[in-house]
Amino acid sequence: MKPRILTGDRPTGPLHIGHLVGSLQSRVALQHEYETFILIADVQALTDNFEQPEKVRRNVLEVALDYLAVGLDPRACTFVIQSQIPEIAELTVFYLNLVTVSHLRQNPTVKTEIAQKGYGEAVPAGFFVYPVSQAADITAFGAQLVPVGADQLPMIEQTREIVRRFNSLYAPVLMEPQALVGRAARLPGLDGQEKMGKSLGNAIFLSDSADEVRRKVMGMFTDPGHLRVQDPGQVEGNPVFTYLDAFDPDPVGVQELKDHYARGGLGDVTVKRHLMEVLEATLAPIRTRRAELAQDPGAVLKLVREGTLRGREVAAGTMARARAAMGLEYFHQD
Amino acid sequence: MKPRILTGDRPTGPLHIGHLVGSLQSRVALQHEYETFILIADVQALTDNFEQPEKVRRNVLEVALDYLAVGLDPRACTFVIQSQIPEIAELTVFYLNLVTVSHLRQNPTVKTEIAQKGYGEAVPAGFFVYPVSQAADITAFGAQLVPVGADQLPMIEQTREIVRRFNSLYAPVLMEPQALVGRAARLPGLDGQEKMGKSLGNAIFLSDSADEVRRKVMGMFTDPGHLRVQDPGQVEGNPVFTYLDAFDPDPVGVQELKDHYARGGLGDVTVKRHLMEVLEATLAPIRTRRAELAQDPGAVLKLVREGTLRGREVAAGTMARARAAMGLEYFHQD
Repeated sequence: MKPRILTGDRPTGPLHIGHLVGSLQSRVALQHEYETFILIADVQALTDNFEQPEKVRRNVLEVALDYLAVGLDPRACTFVIQSQIPEIAELTVFYLNLVTVSHLRQNPTVKTEIAQKGYGEAVPAGFFVYPVSQAADITAFGAQLVPVGADQLPMIEQTREIVRRFNSLYAPVLMEPQALVGRAARLPGLDGQEKMGKSLGNAIFLSDSADEVRRKVMGMFTDPGHLRVQDPGQVEGNPVFTYLDAFDPDPVGVQELKDHYARGGLGDVTVKRHLMEVLEATLAPIRTRRAELAQDPGAVLKLVREGTLRGREVAAGTMARARAAMGLEYFHQD
Repeated sequence: MKPRILTGDRPTGPLHIGHLVGSLQSRVALQHEYETFILIADVQALTDNFEQPEKVRRNVLEVALDYLAVGLDPRACTFVIQSQIPEIAELTVFYLNLVTVSHLRQNPTVKTEIAQKGYGEAVPAGFFVYPVSQAADITAFGAQLVPVGADQLPMIEQTREIVRRFNSLYAPVLMEPQALVGRAARLPGLDGQEKMGKSLGNAIFLSDSADEVRRKVMGMFTDPGHLRVQDPGQVEGNPVFTYLDAFDPDPVGVQELKDHYARGGLGDVTVKRHLMEVLEATLAPIRTRRAELAQDPGAVLKLVREGTLRGREVAAGTMARARAAMGLEYFHQD
């Protein structure tokens, strides 16, 4: 039996090259090694987009297209739409009893996000409790491993705490997951900001046309002190070089470019043209495949539907065991 | 179409004569006038009994026996076990997005209960958010009316707020319920405390034997200053007389007893013997019927199962409309 992994994304926008480097490529690499469940987390996306359900709905298909386009294989991976799995909601409700409000308040990830979003005390309760709902996601599918960035470790720890509490209070029916911490490859934004974000206007999307990629790369932030070609340029914190590190298959060539840029004589436009070629080598086949798939959304939805049905079976099994552990079965004798 | 009502109880213990006076009798009186759904709220009972699931489970049958014994008619009422309706959990999760943590914190009912239970910040999240889960109960079954005591009005108001928010954000698919405030007939405890409680050791249960009722009535708190029969006694705040007010079909006779007691010459034992007779006139037929029903728990569970299945259909209809309103349907074209 291959160990089971749960990953996923919130469908709040199409996926970008930050996702590609940060998670999608490793999912593709691992999809035959692990039994992979991929959750399109529309319910969680609603916790801070509840006023824009149409955005969430629309992006479920976009994200599915992205998955297939980058090479996630529906024969190896199970794609699941979260809202179609009522067992996740049921587990969430039961798990809420096992966590205190003060404990949730101390969750570092949520704390940071509440501050970033400026919610304060007016945080929607659904957003406030989303670590509990993530525990339901992970355990519903019996995931043993959850690939995460280091900043997501408190979420996995919250899940582990809930699992231990449930298993010791009722019966040991839930799988306690482990975090699978990747080498935190986080791509900066086009603007040099630490994070590339779907809604920050600083992302190259997997669905962007070659023209859009060109325009975005040409407009990228570089070293603002690098005014004339012959000036020495700053490589550190220059996203153009970070992208080359991430995408250029020739690290020796990248090092030469960096040295040249640092000592002066290498223009931004030249490096950007090179970056564009490098990106296109990765993005062109994804884009082509994505465009083909987008011709037949029904076929894509069919794959997602099949995965969702498979996922539902697994979640229903977990819920049945959890229900039995709590003794909430009444009609067996009928 | 009869207007639909939702009522229910948390199965944390068998029901007592406080429930009889406070809600059961009026449910029986109204059951043919309204379409009555009665929720055995085991999921809500777990929010502050999550460490004792066996207690909750056991009392589901006890509460069902109480319902049938007092004359709730399964042909008129729909008995539903909450944990068997996943749609309630689903609605809860979506409704959590529509309420802020600070708003929940200000709910007067929950605030009082958190103080009473001494939770402080260590309140289980499930308990903290239970007004949201109640909104899901009420709306899942499309209840137009919810019979409540005046102290429960904030809960209905919370439901109404959620409904208005959902209907205005997505589509007007949820029924906004009205509170049906009864004449707050709250029976004091045997000990004279304001409230008769399942777990306060001050209740006469519908399932108590005649001997238990006798023992409990004889041990009742009366006027502690009423030491000798000839002394004037206090009627006000004397639960023996409050119970007579509630159960004696002869108010003139009760008034005479009160007057006699107040001027002196009427002993506690005499009044208590009368109260016992009066209670037995109500309780004996309930007890007999309950004992008969308890012979065949399978038959009782069958009635509850049929109700639960009917309830599930109604809740599934609500959830389908709610899902459509949010646009969270993906597989229609299949």
